[in-house]
Amino acid sequence: MSAHDRFRIAILGASGYTGAELLRLLRYHPHAEIRALTADRHARKPLGAVFPHLAGEGLPDLVTIGEVDWAEVDVVFCGLPHGTTQEVIAGLPEHLKIVDLSADFRLDSATYADWYGREHRAPHLQREAAYGLTEIEREAIRRARLVANPGCYPSSALPPLIPLLRAQLIDPDEIIIDAKSGVSGAGRAAKESSLFAEVSEGIHAYGVAHHFHMPETDQALSAAAGRKVVVSFTPHLMPMNRGLLSTIYIRLTGGATLGDLQAVLERAYHGEPFVRVLPDGSLPATRHVRGTNLCLIGLSRDRIANRAILVCAIDNLVKGASGQAIQNMNAMLGLPETTALEHRALFP
Amino acid sequence: MSAHDRFRIAILGASGYTGAELLRLLRYHPHAEIRALTADRHARKPLGAVFPHLAGEGLPDLVTIGEVDWAEVDVVFCGLPHGTTQEVIAGLPEHLKIVDLSADFRLDSATYADWYGREHRAPHLQREAAYGLTEIEREAIRRARLVANPGCYPSSALPPLIPLLRAQLIDPDEIIIDAKSGVSGAGRAAKESSLFAEVSEGIHAYGVAHHFHMPETDQALSAAAGRKVVVSFTPHLMPMNRGLLSTIYIRLTGGATLGDLQAVLERAYHGEPFVRVLPDGSLPATRHVRGTNLCLIGLSRDRIANRAILVCAIDNLVKGASGQAIQNMNAMLGLPETTALEHRALFP
Amino acid sequence: MSAHDRFRIAILGASGYTGAELLRLLRYHPHAEIRALTADRHARKPLGAVFPHLAGEGLPDLVTIGEVDWAEVDVVFCGLPHGTTQEVIAGLPEHLKIVDLSADFRLDSATYADWYGREHRAPHLQREAAYGLTEIEREAIRRARLVANPGCYPSSALPPLIPLLRAQLIDPDEIIIDAKSGVSGAGRAAKESSLFAEVSEGIHAYGVAHHFHMPETDQALSAAAGRKVVVSFTPHLMPMNRGLLSTIYIRLTGGATLGDLQAVLERAYHGEPFVRVLPDGSLPATRHVRGTNLCLIGLSRDRIANRAILVCAIDNLVKGASGQAIQNMNAMLGLPETTALEHRALFP
Amino acid sequence: MSAHDRFRIAILGASGYTGAELLRLLRYHPHAEIRALTADRHARKPLGAVFPHLAGEGLPDLVTIGEVDWAEVDVVFCGLPHGTTQEVIAGLPEHLKIVDLSADFRLDSATYADWYGREHRAPHLQREAAYGLTEIEREAIRRARLVANPGCYPSSALPPLIPLLRAQLIDPDEIIIDAKSGVSGAGRAAKESSLFAEVSEGIHAYGVAHHFHMPETDQALSAAAGRKVVVSFTPHLMPMNRGLLSTIYIRLTGGATLGDLQAVLERAYHGEPFVRVLPDGSLPATRHVRGTNLCLIGLSRDRIANRAILVCAIDNLVKGASGQAIQNMNAMLGLPETTALEHRALFP
Repeated sequence: MSAHDRFRIAILGASGYTGAELLRLLRYHPHAEIRALTADRHARKPLGAVFPHLAGEGLPDLVTIGEVDWAEVDVVFCGLPHGTTQEVIAGLPEHLKIVDLSADFRLDSATYADWYGREHRAPHLQREAAYGLTEIEREAIRRARLVANPGCYPSSALPPLIPLLRAQLIDPDEIIIDAKSGVSGAGRAAKESSLFAEVSEGIHAYGVAHHFHMPETDQALSAAAGRKVVVSFTPHLMPMNRGLLSTIYIRLTGGATLGDLQAVLERAYHGEPFVRVLPDGSLPATRHVRGTNLCLIGLSRDRIANRAILVCAIDNLVKGASGQAIQNMNAMLGLPETTALEHRALFP
Repeated sequence: MSAHDRFRIAILGASGYTGAELLRLLRYHPHAEIRALTADRHARKPLGAVFPHLAGEGLPDLVTIGEVDWAEVDVVFCGLPHGTTQEVIAGLPEHLKIVDLSADFRLDSATYADWYGREHRAPHLQREAAYGLTEIEREAIRRARLVANPGCYPSSALPPLIPLLRAQLIDPDEIIIDAKSGVSGAGRAAKESSLFAEVSEGIHAYGVAHHFHMPETDQALSAAAGRKVVVSFTPHLMPMNRGLLSTIYIRLTGGATLGDLQAVLERAYHGEPFVRVLPDGSLPATRHVRGTNLCLIGLSRDRIANRAILVCAIDNLVKGASGQAIQNMNAMLGLPETTALEHRALFP
Repeated sequence: MSAHDRFRIAILGASGYTGAELLRLLRYHPHAEIRALTADRHARKPLGAVFPHLAGEGLPDLVTIGEVDWAEVDVVFCGLPHGTTQEVIAGLPEHLKIVDLSADFRLDSATYADWYGREHRAPHLQREAAYGLTEIEREAIRRARLVANPGCYPSSALPPLIPLLRAQLIDPDEIIIDAKSGVSGAGRAAKESSLFAEVSEGIHAYGVAHHFHMPETDQALSAAAGRKVVVSFTPHLMPMNRGLLSTIYIRLTGGATLGDLQAVLERAYHGEPFVRVLPDGSLPATRHVRGTNLCLIGLSRDRIANRAILVCAIDNLVKGASGQAIQNMNAMLGLPETTALEHRALFP
Repeated sequence: MSAHDRFRIAILGASGYTGAELLRLLRYHPHAEIRALTADRHARKPLGAVFPHLAGEGLPDLVTIGEVDWAEVDVVFCGLPHGTTQEVIAGLPEHLKIVDLSADFRLDSATYADWYGREHRAPHLQREAAYGLTEIEREAIRRARLVANPGCYPSSALPPLIPLLRAQLIDPDEIIIDAKSGVSGAGRAAKESSLFAEVSEGIHAYGVAHHFHMPETDQALSAAAGRKVVVSFTPHLMPMNRGLLSTIYIRLTGGATLGDLQAVLERAYHGEPFVRVLPDGSLPATRHVRGTNLCLIGLSRDRIANRAILVCAIDNLVKGASGQAIQNMNAMLGLPETTALEHRALFP
């Protein structure tokens, strides 16, 4: 740990759900001090004006990014929209540690250009950024100045798949991810498609042909497989606030058994505080991780020979966003990764 | 149509959700007259005691099965538990037309014995029963005295798959069904797992290794493929009252294209009032069918070459149970199949 | 009934929830023909573009109001925003029968000016409009060319209160209405306060000091009491799509008993198809009226002497909006009021 | 604080929701050590068998009450059913500090006999027990060996009312409490009335004539008023897991103003960490307290002269049950009351 007793923190884009979630979790962080909260549209308002549940907690008022005194800040969580993020971060002073929750620094430059149809505006930072799946990229994260926090869908699909691809136990050309997400994943923007009456009492698939978490997933799995991987990925929107469940259909290769898969996963996450491999035959539910930084992985046989089913549950706002971001901050600062992240699930 | 102006109807097991749903839908049936409602545990109570929303509708009080005067009945809907159903139905007079909503008459005798671990107690009726997927088995249903109404999951998986298997456009060994169901599918029994606080704000997979809709699905798909089919099938329980969405992952065979699949499906359901194939690129949501007998099928390309994704939405209590049962009754009686089933979706 | 076999209908503002609900209910109306659907922002789109659940139903495409050929229309349902409505309706031809679902024609001119801070722009129509609580204003509605459909909150508060005030059984100065509404009452506008994540898993009171249904309620109750009435009214927003429950706390006057209240209510609504007074001791739930035009009223003793509790349940989109509007149209056209409104509740 | 560094805790009835919630909250308690968890029906099972979200947390297996070694326990939380509780607690050793979450020790003996129709079986303990509304009964609780934790409804109704009654600003004969509760308040018992499909998408009042939280409320308010108080109290069941909102209608006495009420409430709870009086014009929502021990009170003018509206929001499982219980334990043990209770709300 650094000489600092407390790290001074700024949250950019603090009026969104990931901002509120960072503040909820950091409540129990003994070394974090909230110094600045920005929300350009709401600048000069008390935080309670956008989040009444955070009124009366002694947190700073909202300001514009331009008003932040960076000399008073050690760590930045950046929750700004995709696109503008890269310019904002490129303009920040070098002494800052940054965890970015947008998609702007997750892809390599070729993939980025391919999916976004234009060049990245901060390519040097793009090259430098570590990908923030802590259990997989821990060493790079510890050394990094800028961490690209993963998307919520990859956060639930990559942990079960990466060890199995590395061990060459599954077919990289046959990975089917059927994912179900709570509505908070769509953010706090006032969109018809996120209205209560449009979401409750129903389910639908969306973004089937084109979703920006696809290249991120492909890229990480390709690295694990040592060859190009293109996944089948179908997200569904569900009537719940939080939670993300990925049901993943895989084909075993070369005579691998379910026992082999279970053993590889258990070994990969042995000693990890947040990623837990359930005992054989046990499958997770999102309500078991509500409010926590846990990632629960279950494994089941399939009725089709040589296939298996993986089920992975996370809270999309915690392990899929703000909790993962704090875990990354802890790693970057040399703190125990579990600091402020030991909540038990809020159930019911 | 028969000489009767009105067919006299008995509903056995009327205190469950499928019973209430039959009564809701039959409200607009010009040829149906509710004559008897049974619920052994609630016999002698007015219907409003178990379903306050059906009080004051002039419907008969609940009685035991033994109290029904079968001479006054033409059609029976049987919503009794699996197992006891076969004995009850074996004891009913021959003049009755019967639509059974249990699983008791859906399987052939070998499959039944295999999955239930014992012989069927009414094997002659088992042989005689028509499988009640009207669009597929219409002719048999019209001639039948006993129709085995399909399970809710098969009702959403079979319509998109059967025409494609018949046309040999997809690989029968690679069918993966990821299904998401509303809670009413679990019935009205007071179980901890169906409590509001155990279901809301979350999702989980269940019955992964063993679910009684598996053999039913296999059997119907095997018939379509002309060979043995074993599917991968994973049901999920969702926090919504109604609705069932199946996302189905398939592999194309022999150079088939998405256009081929779309054409085959459109041809198969051309003119069908309830099964609708959406235009290319359009996918259904369960809220689009809430309260209706519709089955909406959408088709999407997959990112993996030679694969495709089918999405099928139904209301589990209507096309997945009571609406399908009325459609079958209509077919058995020579009435237009749409009678009493032309509701538009209740949205929002 | 008129010489017309079918009345030709236009719905203005058809892309909102009340528009969809009119179309759902009119499906079973034998004398209604949908001729025009307007939605200025969505003109030229098929209806299925804004309401996928109404695609494939043979309904007309959306147009602008200016594109409607009024010579081809007999009846207009107007679901436009408050304020602009009065100008649009003032410009419609005289041969049309109009049911307006906005608040623009519900108040007398003095009350309107007082609450909206400006003069009404169509005062002659304001004077002419009948208030569309059919059970109370039936004769005026039958003769009316323009009916102001009531707000959803008054629709649940007035039916139990008006007969009791007329009979002078309750204190007009002590009426406390605690109302709980589903989210669809807030309409389909994309507002942060209607987002799923802002509404689900919680409840709050709103508009406590100032809600536009207050003067409407006061006005109708004042007419019933024969003196000025000002109510206490507190609406709450609940995590459900539909449904509105008003729990009303009243003080009995002059030795009135619960039995007196029950008798007066039963007499007032004797023979009414939609307003039902429950037996003594029975209280309604919103799920008992989901999707129906019913208004269920229950009465309970209070623990405080000389006080009582009324509970009234409606579906805010049916008896609180579109069903009430169709009931009014039926009355205006000399049709049976129940036409197209005999649905049983969708439960669960 | 005692000489103990850690207090050893037993939770009786640990398989219910209040048990799970105690375990969630105690996770951050530096002086609490979970020593025994009982659940007679589930004895010998690991805790994860009844609460999968608490598997892998190093907590003890479930045992019967008879198997607890009381010499190894300092504090007992008792979450057993009403009725049996009094016998179990009467049999516990004297060295234990006990917080009872049942209704068994909340009433004085006359009121108990009156409501339950029989004598209490541990009258000496009944006399000795302190009523566990910490902000009101702090001194008695600090000295108590047995604390009767309040019911969830009184926990939301008493904090705003007691100071106003003590100050004689409101009429004790005109208190109307309209309360709305999440489903977890009904516990984890498998009852039809708590099923998802019976609760979601609707609201209803229940227990209107007779609810066991009535005498508890009356008793505490009578003490505050110095005379007998009987309240009007109507609970409603809502489709949400957690949260309890009481909207309370009161009559001001002797020329009291809203400002007077606001001032009295602010003074009463000045410095209290959990009870917060919102600024004038601001009203609380249950989602602002989800997962926290907060009790938020807002005050609003009423439209009827000399009346006012109080709104109070709590999480029924925290300030309405387990959080309150821990606050009481902290007070009994001389620990800071906020220990383990400083969570920020889980929103969304």
